[in-house]
Amino acid sequence: MLTNRKEIHIEWGDCDPLGIVYFPRYFEFFDACTNALFEKAGWSKPELMKTFGIAGIPMVDVRAKFMVPSAFGDTVVVESKIGEWGKSSFSVEHKLFRGEVLAVEGWEKRVWTVKDAKVASGIRGEEVPKEVRKRFA
Amino acid sequence: MLTNRKEIHIEWGDCDPLGIVYFPRYFEFFDACTNALFEKAGWSKPELMKTFGIAGIPMVDVRAKFMVPSAFGDTVVVESKIGEWGKSSFSVEHKLFRGEVLAVEGWEKRVWTVKDAKVASGIRGEEVPKEVRKRFA
Amino acid sequence: MLTNRKEIHIEWGDCDPLGIVYFPRYFEFFDACTNALFEKAGWSKPELMKTFGIAGIPMVDVRAKFMVPSAFGDTVVVESKIGEWGKSSFSVEHKLFRGEVLAVEGWEKRVWTVKDAKVASGIRGEEVPKEVRKRFA
Amino acid sequence: MLTNRKEIHIEWGDCDPLGIVYFPRYFEFFDACTNALFEKAGWSKPELMKTFGIAGIPMVDVRAKFMVPSAFGDTVVVESKIGEWGKSSFSVEHKLFRGEVLAVEGWEKRVWTVKDAKVASGIRGEEVPKEVRKRFA
Repeated sequence: MLTNRKEIHIEWGDCDPLGIVYFPRYFEFFDACTNALFEKAGWSKPELMKTFGIAGIPMVDVRAKFMVPSAFGDTVVVESKIGEWGKSSFSVEHKLFRGEVLAVEGWEKRVWTVKDAKVASGIRGEEVPKEVRKRFA
Repeated sequence: MLTNRKEIHIEWGDCDPLGIVYFPRYFEFFDACTNALFEKAGWSKPELMKTFGIAGIPMVDVRAKFMVPSAFGDTVVVESKIGEWGKSSFSVEHKLFRGEVLAVEGWEKRVWTVKDAKVASGIRGEEVPKEVRKRFA
Repeated sequence: MLTNRKEIHIEWGDCDPLGIVYFPRYFEFFDACTNALFEKAGWSKPELMKTFGIAGIPMVDVRAKFMVPSAFGDTVVVESKIGEWGKSSFSVEHKLFRGEVLAVEGWEKRVWTVKDAKVASGIRGEEVPKEVRKRFA
Repeated sequence: MLTNRKEIHIEWGDCDPLGIVYFPRYFEFFDACTNALFEKAGWSKPELMKTFGIAGIPMVDVRAKFMVPSAFGDTVVVESKIGEWGKSSFSVEHKLFRGEVLAVEGWEKRVWTVKDAKVASGIRGEEVPKEVRKRFA
């Protein structure tokens, strides 16, 4: 199972008046970690979009549990991997460690999305190519 | 059940390269909506912190489902209410409407948190005062 | 001279570990204020882009002076107006008041920008239409 | 003259509907670069605050010029150094390069700030310690 580890330095601007990471920032971190995971699999996000002609991999469902806060000056590590493959959707799992401690867990469900002028929203889900799945095995 | 409705104007800076709201922004919106709900109940966040001597109401678990994207220029409405009261924790439910359409659902679990120099983290959960719960009934 | 006044409620998530607005947020506020100024002149940003076929009004130079901090729970007011019109560029001036006190001053230089596949960057400046300038007089 | 070079990977979430960095993000980058410059001089921001008993180094004046946009997937480099030392204030200069090209220039004026319960705002400027200045020479 392909796993990516990404180090994140917590900045002053990531933190709230309690001096700890403002929780929406974790979702920005995890989003960047998903992109880094795809990059490790072989495609940066721009390459992914160009290579497969997709509009993106938008989120349809996302969850996070916060066990331990992190503060500015901390360096944390996020481990990310694909949870499971649906037909056009897939899940990504993130574990954020502060030292040895599991501090935050994130879970994302995303859709492999192509542009389609024929549908009202202009975009629709499509089956994730086998070539893509294979790289994460 | 006390419910708050908050109108949010989607700004250019809320949106990503697809031209739709970058999903972590929804969590910032919902966080502001929780504060607005408490304000409607009688206490702005600074008043809440001062009146009850709390350190904050940090998130321990959060989830959102995205059904319909919103784009810059849209005005959306978020309806927020308390889901349930635990002992020191409570949940908040948010429904974001784009026109008549339910576009995003959010769910937060937060803890009523006081400062305590005796514990390692410097903060700990405490029972939500009855006076607070009563206002949301 | 067309002037727009926009009220902004300072949220918890706008503030840093000192409990005051994290300064890059002021630029987000001012950006939204510029859009609100154009909306008052007759065009929301999406309308502006559609009506005149522009790619946007990107910033080329921006400055702010911070005299007095604002904290979460504050409601501030920003007064915005066009400073001067260049050929394809124009400046916008923002004054942010906390109560009666001028707390932050912002100044933006932006360019009226159209898409042009013939230039390397894909976009280029173009003369601001008279119809647009007239509305701000 | 002590100079710090910091590499920044432009993320999807840093970019606006034009697909380029949303300009307030550059100020977040530069703020992190100033902290990295101080860290190179010997003190991370938390250490700086603890060692010298300061409340922070808040911004009083900031400016940026945007020459060339950057897009998600880009890796840029920021070179940062102290511009000049005033009594209690100092300036920081940032040059952001996209490859060989100078893409953004930033300039910050900050104040060495201590807590003081005797003044209305609770904080006041104080002379930057010689020990600090020396490290940047």
